[in-house]
Amino acid sequence: MLGQYVTETRKKHPLIHCITNYVTVNDVANVILACGGSPIMADEADEVEDITAICQGLTLNIGTLNHRTVQSMLIAGKKAKSLGHPVVLDPVGAGASSLRTRAAAMILEEVEPEVIRGNISEIRALANHSGKAKGVDADEKDAVDASNLDEVLAFLQAFAQKTGSVVAATGATDLVCDGKNAYIIHNGRAEMSRITGTGCQLSGMTAAFAASAPAEKRLEAVAAAVCTMGAAGEIAYGHLAPYEGNATYARRIIDAVNHMDEADLNKEARYERR
Amino acid sequence: MLGQYVTETRKKHPLIHCITNYVTVNDVANVILACGGSPIMADEADEVEDITAICQGLTLNIGTLNHRTVQSMLIAGKKAKSLGHPVVLDPVGAGASSLRTRAAAMILEEVEPEVIRGNISEIRALANHSGKAKGVDADEKDAVDASNLDEVLAFLQAFAQKTGSVVAATGATDLVCDGKNAYIIHNGRAEMSRITGTGCQLSGMTAAFAASAPAEKRLEAVAAAVCTMGAAGEIAYGHLAPYEGNATYARRIIDAVNHMDEADLNKEARYERR
Amino acid sequence: MLGQYVTETRKKHPLIHCITNYVTVNDVANVILACGGSPIMADEADEVEDITAICQGLTLNIGTLNHRTVQSMLIAGKKAKSLGHPVVLDPVGAGASSLRTRAAAMILEEVEPEVIRGNISEIRALANHSGKAKGVDADEKDAVDASNLDEVLAFLQAFAQKTGSVVAATGATDLVCDGKNAYIIHNGRAEMSRITGTGCQLSGMTAAFAASAPAEKRLEAVAAAVCTMGAAGEIAYGHLAPYEGNATYARRIIDAVNHMDEADLNKEARYERR
Repeated sequence: MLGQYVTETRKKHPLIHCITNYVTVNDVANVILACGGSPIMADEADEVEDITAICQGLTLNIGTLNHRTVQSMLIAGKKAKSLGHPVVLDPVGAGASSLRTRAAAMILEEVEPEVIRGNISEIRALANHSGKAKGVDADEKDAVDASNLDEVLAFLQAFAQKTGSVVAATGATDLVCDGKNAYIIHNGRAEMSRITGTGCQLSGMTAAFAASAPAEKRLEAVAAAVCTMGAAGEIAYGHLAPYEGNATYARRIIDAVNHMDEADLNKEARYERR
Repeated sequence: MLGQYVTETRKKHPLIHCITNYVTVNDVANVILACGGSPIMADEADEVEDITAICQGLTLNIGTLNHRTVQSMLIAGKKAKSLGHPVVLDPVGAGASSLRTRAAAMILEEVEPEVIRGNISEIRALANHSGKAKGVDADEKDAVDASNLDEVLAFLQAFAQKTGSVVAATGATDLVCDGKNAYIIHNGRAEMSRITGTGCQLSGMTAAFAASAPAEKRLEAVAAAVCTMGAAGEIAYGHLAPYEGNATYARRIIDAVNHMDEADLNKEARYERR
Repeated sequence: MLGQYVTETRKKHPLIHCITNYVTVNDVANVILACGGSPIMADEADEVEDITAICQGLTLNIGTLNHRTVQSMLIAGKKAKSLGHPVVLDPVGAGASSLRTRAAAMILEEVEPEVIRGNISEIRALANHSGKAKGVDADEKDAVDASNLDEVLAFLQAFAQKTGSVVAATGATDLVCDGKNAYIIHNGRAEMSRITGTGCQLSGMTAAFAASAPAEKRLEAVAAAVCTMGAAGEIAYGHLAPYEGNATYARRIIDAVNHMDEADLNKEARYERR
């Protein structure tokens, strides 16, 4: 049952170093706190090794990358690896500019992150070192549905096998896999895509979950984080007044993560394991 | 009727490239989503041309400018122009420092933005290449009221004519004009000035509305964005509990934008066209 | 009575220049507005003197420092001092990296801030020019309770005497002192530590309160800001629905600051003066 990873994260209270974009950084910090972790944001090359060394996990998010912060991501990533901390890469907008595609590919190659979390278009761009993305949202022609699920999953598992990472491609259907096993997850609501940063938040929370689980349970811990975000989206939606919209919804999703416990997640998680 | 521009924006779902300040960037992203667009934030000079090329509109906001991002604004602005995308300039704090006044003037001259959206003090500083602002708020002596409305409007229309831009000077009374016509808009509430970033949000939303309308209807599209923000502020205020204040009010304004449709705006918009 | 400083801040409406981290900057802006001030964020070295010159107070927060912004903090800090504006230093994460410890110490030495506001671990790191912090939260072994209060207070007062600053060490118990007198403050709730940025917000609000009070009442003004934040946390908690969590709580705390008046604070403040 995936609920145990909620409990583990609350018990371990992991400190997570985030080098992340300035658009959604506040929500990333609050969702890490909501799930039981503590965030620290630091992106200056001269301090990222020190900061990572006191943490238990690292998330690298290229959403508003620049040359300075990409360097910091590489330095922090290598340090985290040397310490055995899980690293989560969120290749925001890979495929939308050649700089992003190259930066994400460079981090992938030089850091070898334990987890890659993105939408399917970003992950395709990263896997193919190229791509055409519609901004930071997945391209509609990349959408995962019953007709192409097997094919998409085979692609993701091949990518996971090649990189050695757990790969989480999130969207209407979330696919989380390593080279051998996979979770097909049906939590979440379409309205979550009208909020900025649910993906970034998930990447941050994933680092907290991964940092709280043993390496051999990493796939499960990542799947648990994905289910937690989706289930929080469902619960939060139920609390919206008719006049409330995407901005209040964003708050209530974090609130729902804050209240989620092991039993809740065990009840709410909807997935198939392959 | 201005409501049609709400519908057009939801239908066109424009992707808006934002180079904007880190204070209010999350709210800008959420309000663009709320009105039917999609935001992408990117400020590294090496990628802004790629990013702008996949978008339909651009907003340039100098709220936390630095030398690096001003260069990116110029590069992105010129690229957007070459592609025929509308560019919105928000000269936040022009007049508050000579760097800001100069940067805003440089963007005005080199990019020739289709829309300029600011408070009246910022627009005066930009027009005069100088000024004395009280921070990012309009100076009280610049306030627009019945006694000086004609004079202020004449000044704005002369500026619009000179620059070829639609000019939106927002405050207690909002004035939106090109060189020939003008909207005098009475939506909004004084309490909106106790929230950070309603102006920045409006600039982002204005880019989405302008990107969804034909060039010959740009004045109307900008007026519609201004009315939408003001009407959202009125609607949102009605949903506040007595103990709720500026932080919750900020969420509910975006919520109200999220719920606004054509009929709502046609009912709520209060303006005079000259 | 401390409530008078709430009134003074609303009456003076001080403009506060903030060089602060991008994680919590939006909340800092909104809380400064909530208490009656106006914020302006500007971190480019070439404009910070201009910006500070039109303000009445300055807050320097090293939460996401980089080499560029540390230079801007030094320039702005010296300018503010030359103008007689109170400067608040928030040494976020001092002790967590040697860069942060050094940057905070450099600002302390070169700017001589009127107020230092941090958690006890950060203030120990700053005082000792070294330290081992658990990220941006206070180390548990630094916690202030009945058993060590006298000792901690003696340490803080010695530090206040040496630096000439008012020192505010906030946590479960808040200690605010100068070299002679002290406030031991019991407002606030433990749940506030599960929100990102309550400390940053307090530092911004402290600058607004300090900028609105005469220099000889600075200790009282800082104590009033600390009580306001804590009392707002208590009031806000009472308005939470059972399903609301840390993200909504964050909004409601700012809302409660927005509603706080002199009589409220006089009623809610719980402190001992020594």
